[in-house]
Parts: sequence; C-alpha cells; structure tokens
Amino acid sequence: MAAKLSLKLKNFMQPIRPPLTIFLLGATGDLAKKKILPAIFQLFKKGVLSNNFQLIGMARRPMTHQQFQNYVNKIVSPIVKDADWSKFSQNLFYVSGDLTNAESYKELKHCHQQLQACGNHLWYVATLPKLYLDVIRNIKELSLEKTACGWTKFLLEKPFGTDLVSSQLLNRELLQVFAEDQIYRIDHFLAKETIQNLMVFRFGNGIFEHLWNRHHVDNIQITVAEQMGINERADFYDSIGVVRDVVQNHLLQMLTMTLMEEPVDLQPKTIHTHRMQFLSQLEVLDPITNPGKVVFGQYDQGTLDGKLVKAYRQEAAELSNSLTPTAIAAKLCVNSKRWQGTPIYLRAGKRLAQSVAEITIQFKEPINEMFKKHGIVQRGNLLTLRIQPNEGVVLRMNVKKPGLDLNMSQVPMQFCYKSEFQMGLVEAYQKLIYDAAQGDPTLFPQALDIEASWRVIQPTLDYLQDGDHQPDLYRAGSWGPPSFAKLLARDNRHWSEPSPGICNF
Amino acid sequence: MAAKLSLKLKNFMQPIRPPLTIFLLGATGDLAKKKILPAIFQLFKKGVLSNNFQLIGMARRPMTHQQFQNYVNKIVSPIVKDADWSKFSQNLFYVSGDLTNAESYKELKHCHQQLQACGNHLWYVATLPKLYLDVIRNIKELSLEKTACGWTKFLLEKPFGTDLVSSQLLNRELLQVFAEDQIYRIDHFLAKETIQNLMVFRFGNGIFEHLWNRHHVDNIQITVAEQMGINERADFYDSIGVVRDVVQNHLLQMLTMTLMEEPVDLQPKTIHTHRMQFLSQLEVLDPITNPGKVVFGQYDQGTLDGKLVKAYRQEAAELSNSLTPTAIAAKLCVNSKRWQGTPIYLRAGKRLAQSVAEITIQFKEPINEMFKKHGIVQRGNLLTLRIQPNEGVVLRMNVKKPGLDLNMSQVPMQFCYKSEFQMGLVEAYQKLIYDAAQGDPTLFPQALDIEASWRVIQPTLDYLQDGDHQPDLYRAGSWGPPSFAKLLARDNRHWSEPSPGICNF
Repeated sequence: MAAKLSLKLKNFMQPIRPPLTIFLLGATGDLAKKKILPAIFQLFKKGVLSNNFQLIGMARRPMTHQQFQNYVNKIVSPIVKDADWSKFSQNLFYVSGDLTNAESYKELKHCHQQLQACGNHLWYVATLPKLYLDVIRNIKELSLEKTACGWTKFLLEKPFGTDLVSSQLLNRELLQVFAEDQIYRIDHFLAKETIQNLMVFRFGNGIFEHLWNRHHVDNIQITVAEQMGINERADFYDSIGVVRDVVQNHLLQMLTMTLMEEPVDLQPKTIHTHRMQFLSQLEVLDPITNPGKVVFGQYDQGTLDGKLVKAYRQEAAELSNSLTPTAIAAKLCVNSKRWQGTPIYLRAGKRLAQSVAEITIQFKEPINEMFKKHGIVQRGNLLTLRIQPNEGVVLRMNVKKPGLDLNMSQVPMQFCYKSEFQMGLVEAYQKLIYDAAQGDPTLFPQALDIEASWRVIQPTLDYLQDGDHQPDLYRAGSWGPPSFAKLLARDNRHWSEPSPGICNF
Repeated sequence: MAAKLSLKLKNFMQPIRPPLTIFLLGATGDLAKKKILPAIFQLFKKGVLSNNFQLIGMARRPMTHQQFQNYVNKIVSPIVKDADWSKFSQNLFYVSGDLTNAESYKELKHCHQQLQACGNHLWYVATLPKLYLDVIRNIKELSLEKTACGWTKFLLEKPFGTDLVSSQLLNRELLQVFAEDQIYRIDHFLAKETIQNLMVFRFGNGIFEHLWNRHHVDNIQITVAEQMGINERADFYDSIGVVRDVVQNHLLQMLTMTLMEEPVDLQPKTIHTHRMQFLSQLEVLDPITNPGKVVFGQYDQGTLDGKLVKAYRQEAAELSNSLTPTAIAAKLCVNSKRWQGTPIYLRAGKRLAQSVAEITIQFKEPINEMFKKHGIVQRGNLLTLRIQPNEGVVLRMNVKKPGLDLNMSQVPMQFCYKSEFQMGLVEAYQKLIYDAAQGDPTLFPQALDIEASWRVIQPTLDYLQDGDHQPDLYRAGSWGPPSFAKLLARDNRHWSEPSPGICNF
C-alpha cells in the first residue's frame, strides 16, 4: 500500500488495475442514482476504469441487464457522449434480489461466474444501514469475500451504527469477514476538496504552523448549519436527531482535521494514528457532568426566504410531542499541550439562518497597546475555512481605513476555489471510489475512529435517551435559541456569523 | 501637540483653526498646479479650511489677484461647483516676485498686511530646491517667520539636499529660522494610504506580530520601478541618478516603515525615534567595502508596450558618455536582534519592465517534512504590500490543488483598497497639508531622519562621483542587467516578480 500511495502522491492518476468487478448492492437506490453511478461513469470517462471492468448491480426491483443499462443511461445521460456510452454500457449487469436472502447472493455469484472475469472485487453497499449485518453475513455464507485473482475491497456508507454499542457490533461482524484494510467506510464529507485542503493549508503554510496553538488562538468555532427542515423524513430524523445526524461524523471530523497534531508523513496509518490520538484527548460531551456546556434546540415555526415554515412538531402527527433536538451548541475542550484552555464551540442544526459549513479560527488580539492607547479599536484576526457553499479561505486583517484620520477596519483577504482553479472540484464520490480501489484509506474513517467518535457523544445520547430534557425552541430561520448565544456570552465571546459574502459571485 | 494628536486619532477631522494664511512660493509651478492647489481646494470643500483663510501665491510670472484666481479656477475646474468656487476664490491673492530677492518678500509682507488677517501662517515652498537657501534667508531677513497671533509652519518639498553635507547645511539654515517642530519636510510618498497602512498592518494584526523577524522571514524585497525614462529632464536626471532619485527617499522610507521596531505609542516623537534607530542599525551601502552587494545599471534601447525606446545615452547629446546609473540593485543587512542575518534586497530604476512599488516579505518554508517526503513541492508564504499601482495586500498561501491526487498550489489571498472601500483614497497632498496645519509631524521626515538616510547612501554617492565605474547596460523594458539577477542567485534566491494581476480589475 505504501508503494502505491507514494506513486499516487507523485501525481500519477493511475488506472485501476483490470479486470475489476464492482458489486453494487442497492443499485436502484437514491444514492446509487445521484452519486455512485455518475461517479463510476466519470472515472470510466477519465480512463481510470479500463474497458475491462464489470459492474453488477443488485436490488429488489426486477430488471434485465438491458433494462438496467437503460436505467443507468437515463441517469448519466446529461454527461454522456455516444462513444463513451456504448463502451461503458456493455459492462453493466444486473441481478434482481433480496439483500437479506442468501439465495439472491447465489444468483449474484452465478452472474459473476458467467462473466469469466477473474480479477479484483469491489463491493459497494449502498442500502439501508439496517441491512448491513445481513449483507455481511450473506457474503460470508457464500464466501463472496474471496477472489482467486486479486483483491477484494468492501465499501459501505455511513452511518456506521447508531451508538457506541451498535458500531462495535458492526465492526466485529465486518472484521470476521474482511481485514480492516479491506474495509472502506464512506463518509463523503471527508472527501470534499476543502476538507482535504485542511491538512495542506495547516501544514503547508509556514506562517500558520507557528500560530496553530493555544498561545495564539483565542477560540475555534465550527458551524454545520442547514436551512432545510426534515422534509418527509419525520420517522427517520426523529430516531436520529442532530447529534447522530451531524455531530458524530461531520463536526467531529472537521474538528479532528483542524486540531490534530502534525503527522510526520502522509501515510494513511500515520494520519489515522493522529486522528485517533486527537479524539482520545477530546473531552467527552456530557450534559450531566458538564452542565451548561451542551445546549439543545428544536425548531419552532418561522420564516425562511420569506416563506412561513412549520415547527418541527408540526411536520408530522407523530412528532407533536417530540423532544428530539434539531440543533445543538456545545463547548468542548481538548486535553493536549497544544490546545489546553482554548475553547472549541460547535454549532449545528436544521432550519437555521444559513446553509453553511465552516471553521473559524479566532486569533488572539495583538498584545501591543499602541492603538488602544489612542482609542482605536483593534480586533483579533479571523481565519475562516469555508467548507460549503462557496468553498474558500478568508483571513480577516486589520488595515488602515482610507481617510485623513487613523482608523482601523477589518477587511477580508480571500481565496476562492472557483475563481482560482479553472477545473471543477473533484466530486467526493469519484475520489472515494478511486482511493478505495487504489488502496488508499486516508479519507476513510476506520473501526477505531468510528468507535472513538461515538464514545465522545455517547453520554449525550444517553442523556437524550432518558427523555426528561426539554430542547429550547428556536424560530426557524434564526441562529438557534437564546441559550446558544448565552453559551458564548458567558465566556465574553460571541458566535462569528458566517458571512454570505464569502466567495459568493 | 500631543493633545491635538490624540484628538485627531479619535477620528475627529478637525477644521484648521482660522484665521489662516497660506504663503505659496512657486505658485505657478508644476507641483502647485498638479498637486498643491487642487489639494487645498479639496480641503476647503471638505470644510477643513474655513472661509476665513487666505492664500497668497508668489512666483515670477506677472499676474493680478484676479488673473491668479482665473488661473487657479482653470486648475480646479474639473472638481469645482459654482457655489464652492465663489467662496474659495475670494481668498486667493498673488504677488509677482523673484524668490531670490528680498524686495519681493517686502511686497509679500505688504500684501499680507493689507488683508489684516492676523493668525496662523503656513508657508509652502514649492520652488526649485536650489532656491531653498535664498527663501529661508529672505524670510529671516524680513522676520516673516513671526506672527503675532498664532503659529507659523514651514513646508518644503523634497529633495532635501543632494548629499549628506548639503542636507546638513540646509538643516542648519532652517533651524536658524524655525524650530524643528515648525518644519514639515514633504515627501508625498510617506503620505500614501498604503505606506501609512504599513504600521497598521504590521502592528494591528496579531498573527504577523509574531512572524515579523529573522526566525520566520527568509528575505525581504523592495521594488520601486518605473517604465518611464527621463523624458526631457536629461540635465536634471544626469546630475541626480537613481540613488538620489528614489533610494535615499522612497526605498529607505519603505524599508524603515516595514522593518523598524514596534513603537509603544503613536506619538510622532516615538515613531521618529524608532525610525532613526532603525536607520542607524542599517548597514551603510558601500560598493567599495562590500563589493558585489550593490550593482548599477543604465538602460539601453529596448521595447516597452510594443514601442522601441531610446537608450539613456541617446536621450540627449550631453548624455552620450554618461555613466549615471538609471537602475540599482542592492543587498542590505540590518544589525539588530530582530533582523540580523535576514537579507534585504532593493531594486529600483527607470525603463524597467513595470511601473510598480511594492514590498514583499518572503517567509521561510515550513520546517515540516511531511509533504517533501512525498515529492510535493512546498514554497514559503509570500506577503506583498502593493504601494502602487492597484494598492492592496496579497498573501500567497499553499492550498490543495483540486483533483484526485494530492498536489499543492500557491494561490493569492488578496485585499484591494479599491474594492473594499467605497471612498477613494485620500490624496497624499491633502493629508500632508492637513497634518502640518494640525501639528502632526508623523508623516514628515525630520532633520535627523534625512541626514541618517543620506549617511546610508553617501559611500555610494562618493563611489559614483569617482567616475571609474561602468554601469551594466540593460534592455529598456527588462528587469535590469543580468547582474541584478546574479545578486540574488548567489544567495540561492530570485526576485519575486511583481504580479500585474494584483488588484488589477
């Protein structure tokens, strides 16, 4: 793996070694349609997937190979050229089956045998998470994890369990069939260019290397906000809530990438070790032992884009008494030499004022007194890493305001991905399928990562489970209930509002 | 003065206390026409100059008050409104006279007496520098430096001498008539917003405070380049050369503002002390004792904007054998705790590739090895303070280049004065007249400043005087002779070329 990695890093976009068979379970599902099938087609167009590959889709819906090809054609037609398509489509096959039933896997095996393509196997599990254990057990039952002529890799989509215990069970079952380095757990968020850029930005810029610690940083704020409500997913969301939805994965990943120690090299193992180490130094999020450091909200009705939107409890009849939090604000500490005493503020939720994910590093105010002495207000520098939308980086600097008098103004210096790079950002799913096939696990959380992140939020899940809390109601379209602002006000700080102007042109 | 200063800093744009008389010597000259008279009119329009002021112009050309008013009207007509003009013009008076002749000053005195405006006096000397001593002596002769009812301030334009000895003589003569705090030496370059911003930028941004020293900075480069040749000023320029033209003033000022120690307050005295201290720590520019650290160039013919332009020696018959340098590159060191061992590279001249003045701080490469190990090229961060044109600040950062592979790209994060501030930049001359009248000498070099800067370049002037050097010829429109590049190549460095793209929209 190490040899492959260093080649890759030297900027060869290696073709994936043929022959390759992709087993796509859940081939007619939403994710396959929106993300996986288009990504596979793009990799084919780029020459990363050779002509000598097969994709065998499996799902419940009855279809012939030809019908499946027509189905896929419709999906990729906006990006297809005739010549591409005819070469691509001949590699598509389909098996109708029930993922909980071993018989279906026999048919899948049979289909593959008929293709006489002994080679590498890439399994992509894009089904409902509740089917994962069935899928794993059936693969084991039919020894499908084995191939006589190459490797097998197993990709599965988040969420990986619903709490610490279930994630441990899933990992146990997985590891009975596959080795850890065969398993690629997909969280597409980690493959976003801007998340990947976090490491390059932090460690590739000498000027920040020296500033990235408690001596220079006053506090760190991470926001993952959505304007969207729960739409028609009432049942699903109510069993999940904001903590499982975005804290355990997106927020903790952003936090880890931003604050972990500097790896000595880019080997996936080194990076995983640092991630794990950081998560172990992170204070557990426990509303009982740390009262007031975690605050929950639930959206009430309100106005978004000029339209009245419903309260969470009005979204469906069964939610009318729900206590599920749709938003959270929390203060976290890290017990490390680098970060001890530097508070980290997290904020996430639905029906908030903007749809935005960003990290803001608030640097301390300069120690000098020269401007203060003369009544000039001087603010600490702010560095914002905007993950989405309008990906970019903004550094807020103090400059002299033009004019006869000496006054300071804080202005943004910004870098925007879309204006700097002609090429589009690489879609996360292409990157992930490419990396998994090439054997680079850097962007995939591993068994211990996952368990460590569940461990951080488990006390919060337990607290919410008990059911005797009441989330604070907040107006849809606001930045959460007043308790969110109070969390920072107590520390004489305030939330840095995401600027809609960042890279917005 | 301190009280006024701190008031000013608190963002009051105080009107200049009336009655005020401005004595403008050289009232029909080029500088008065292009800069001084428009600036005075603008200050009047802004209400900084009250109706109760007088301007008495003096120059050789015979004119009545009315004719002078018409003359000024033509100059300011692009910015005039009728109402403004009638109020303004009634304050304009004129005396025709010879600046070398005491009789003319008697007429000037008479004119002023007739106005019966006992108050503050602001002298603005905008004549040829060779007349300065005559002006000073005549003012003394007629006791014009005195006013019964207010202050007198004396403004004069650079250059202040042509070498150390002549600058000392000028200072001596000045100080026989005025106290140092009455003298305001004008170098408009110091009043540019971007030069003024240097202090705010450096000391107002916590993140740079820690990086602004030899531990983090690899080298500093300052470029003051012009595409323009000498036009019809052959005689004048040949006696001056690039060292007197821009090194003694612009380059050393930019250098000082960029590298001096941090003042404890913004009192002009504190800032002057720090400037002086820096200049005294600066290594003297001596081509004899430091061979190879100063290189001279003279422009040969070449192409600029697609047009063939003459060589310097072809500009006029008397230049055909000239050895005067039109460009210089030099390496300087500072003997201070902060900067010892950090080289400063200066570059200036005429007929160079761009018209640009900028300072570039080249930060050291990060110490980490994680990217190098994998063959990824990583460059130190660059901070460019663009003085002109397209004023702004650019920080070059390393980010992940979008794509399947991990590659780094250096991208600019920029702040541009013109896009951030609706208001235009305040023209330097308005600022200087305003500050002088208000008694704020911050932006004016003082006697000791001037002498210290001449002291730095005096060995170079002596060396050039000797006449046995030969400047290296360079193609007009290039970045100087090959010796300029070699100066840095010897240190394994290269000039950072000013990017035409900075704030250019």
